[in-house]
Amino acid sequence: MSSFRFEELHRARASRARRGIFHTPRGPVETPAFMPVGTKATVKAMWPEQLETLGARIVLANTYHLNLRPGPEVVQALGGLHAMMAWDGPILTDSGGFQVFSLADMAKVDEDGVSFRSEVDGSIVRLDAERALEIQSALGSDIAMVFDQCPTSVDDRFEVERAVDRSLRWAARARAWHGERGGASRGQAVFGIVQGGKFEDLRRACARELVALDFDGYAVGGVCVGEGKEAMHLGMEHGAAELPAEKVRYLMGIGAPEDFFPAVRAGIDLFDCVSPTRLGRIAIAFTSRGRVRVKNARFARDRGPLDPACSCTVCARWSVGTLRHLFQAEEMLAGMLLSYHNLHFLLDLMRRIREAIAVDRLDELEADFHSRYGAASAAEEPA
Amino acid sequence: MSSFRFEELHRARASRARRGIFHTPRGPVETPAFMPVGTKATVKAMWPEQLETLGARIVLANTYHLNLRPGPEVVQALGGLHAMMAWDGPILTDSGGFQVFSLADMAKVDEDGVSFRSEVDGSIVRLDAERALEIQSALGSDIAMVFDQCPTSVDDRFEVERAVDRSLRWAARARAWHGERGGASRGQAVFGIVQGGKFEDLRRACARELVALDFDGYAVGGVCVGEGKEAMHLGMEHGAAELPAEKVRYLMGIGAPEDFFPAVRAGIDLFDCVSPTRLGRIAIAFTSRGRVRVKNARFARDRGPLDPACSCTVCARWSVGTLRHLFQAEEMLAGMLLSYHNLHFLLDLMRRIREAIAVDRLDELEADFHSRYGAASAAEEPA
Repeated sequence: MSSFRFEELHRARASRARRGIFHTPRGPVETPAFMPVGTKATVKAMWPEQLETLGARIVLANTYHLNLRPGPEVVQALGGLHAMMAWDGPILTDSGGFQVFSLADMAKVDEDGVSFRSEVDGSIVRLDAERALEIQSALGSDIAMVFDQCPTSVDDRFEVERAVDRSLRWAARARAWHGERGGASRGQAVFGIVQGGKFEDLRRACARELVALDFDGYAVGGVCVGEGKEAMHLGMEHGAAELPAEKVRYLMGIGAPEDFFPAVRAGIDLFDCVSPTRLGRIAIAFTSRGRVRVKNARFARDRGPLDPACSCTVCARWSVGTLRHLFQAEEMLAGMLLSYHNLHFLLDLMRRIREAIAVDRLDELEADFHSRYGAASAAEEPA
Repeated sequence: MSSFRFEELHRARASRARRGIFHTPRGPVETPAFMPVGTKATVKAMWPEQLETLGARIVLANTYHLNLRPGPEVVQALGGLHAMMAWDGPILTDSGGFQVFSLADMAKVDEDGVSFRSEVDGSIVRLDAERALEIQSALGSDIAMVFDQCPTSVDDRFEVERAVDRSLRWAARARAWHGERGGASRGQAVFGIVQGGKFEDLRRACARELVALDFDGYAVGGVCVGEGKEAMHLGMEHGAAELPAEKVRYLMGIGAPEDFFPAVRAGIDLFDCVSPTRLGRIAIAFTSRGRVRVKNARFARDRGPLDPACSCTVCARWSVGTLRHLFQAEEMLAGMLLSYHNLHFLLDLMRRIREAIAVDRLDELEADFHSRYGAASAAEEPA
């Protein structure tokens, strides 16, 4: 019996939206949930207890980066990811697949895996289906992702199909490797990743084949690679369509708040994105009136809060004018405060989404959200 | 009646060391006390509640920097320094004198004041005795410092004497300006600054003249400008020798823990320095065994705490190996954690100094401190 289990508490009438609990050996996660990203074993600029205060119950870390530095053996010597992150809750690690294909120098893919050059010491690094799981096992995460080949295009059918087929063969190898080692009952779950670009039939076929392999959970990948909002929403929908109700569903890399609603309606339970901390460090804030550039000169003498509708401690105690000053002065506190605020925004929105699902009022919440968020965003962002 | 008052609780038998309370309209400060420095309206990398947790009761901010950016009018528009720093306790601002003479571009000093070029917008900025107080009044600090001319040398007697004489004329102007506006009873105290380099007679004469002007407190300046430890300790001693027992005494810019002991014996009550956060950001830690370079390769797989004798939350929850990784990965959390630890170290040492004075055991505390701190420091630091 797996110690990872998804419990569906309530399903919406008009969509696949659902409220649930993802049970893990390190505690329950109420879903839909947003998972802050701690790429290199820290959610940037955040103390771990602040994540807890903000309601985060599960965080991510990144196999690609941690494999290069400090390396899985060092992570193990230091007591594993939970010790390094000073985080007792569940941790999910991605497999490194996405980063290899988007970041790595001279990545060469073959049927067996991928080789690339380390950006840290210039050595040649190999990742494949088994090695990616082996590393994640050494890191000590609670949930590992299979290693997949991300297609470089979402609409070149030939290229997408080839990547899906190969990723499925890698997924089967990963499933076998995990099964031989006792599976999730040994403490680490493994999730499969649905790819297939913008093609509904490929997405559905990929999902069915993964489900036949019986993973502990399923992710939808490759829906946030510059394909435009409509294609993204179709990708979510088709990617999640064939996934079973009894397993948790995770949409990889989506952190724009407006995308939460269609994703939740597609049946997504888990989200992650670097957006709150990455945008926070460059002075862009999520607010109830849309995205706001805190460095804007109009805030210089503004004694009011960044977002009057926000209940976070940053909005309660710092004026937007002070936040602007801290960014102008290049103070670390600037990125710390705005990362905190942005994480609060997404985690709080997700909490409201959970409550809305429970009372079948997701449409009302979305309409209310968009009535304020969309308009101001458009005004604030450059064309 | 001034709302600022120094209360001496206990004086050591063998030295001028004393334990006391510096009463301010924003609460009492137990002395000797260390004041963390928030140059540009933030103690770098620290949340204000963390400063409180660590036992800081008073913080500094910097007139030179805040005058250039965002400017005193903007600070005022944003509700003053306490609002900007989210800090309810007392704030001391220095006058900018030290920075003008050490940092400013093309500083030109004349009998009336100093002109220099702004590093922010290139404009010509003027500071003088009255303007420095006017700015500090706009910033809204609780304690303002007089504007003084820092001699560029501590042992060129002609140069030091000239700077002292001019600074005394400026101090008299500052005292008059402050007195005409109601003095400390209006909420802001003003401290005079004893200069005089390494010359005992100049230090004593300067102190006597300042005391005759009747400031709300007195600082000893110019003892940390590269003159060597012995000269530094003589500077403290001679600078503080003529200061009255009923007023608080502040030693400017001293943050090496080993210097706290001779300073406290010279009768010093207040300390400030950027060292804990500045060193913390470049991976240098104060520890019970001396200064430690956290990036040292020998820590790579070290699962133990940075300082086993330390009771701070960083040493309780992060291994020194993890701290090293965070610095190698250039993560913001690295500087945040080490700034926290270093501030804890100095504030905790100051707490132990207060306790030792109360039971007349300062010598024992110092001997115990040096038996571990000195040796390791020498081993760790490059020659």
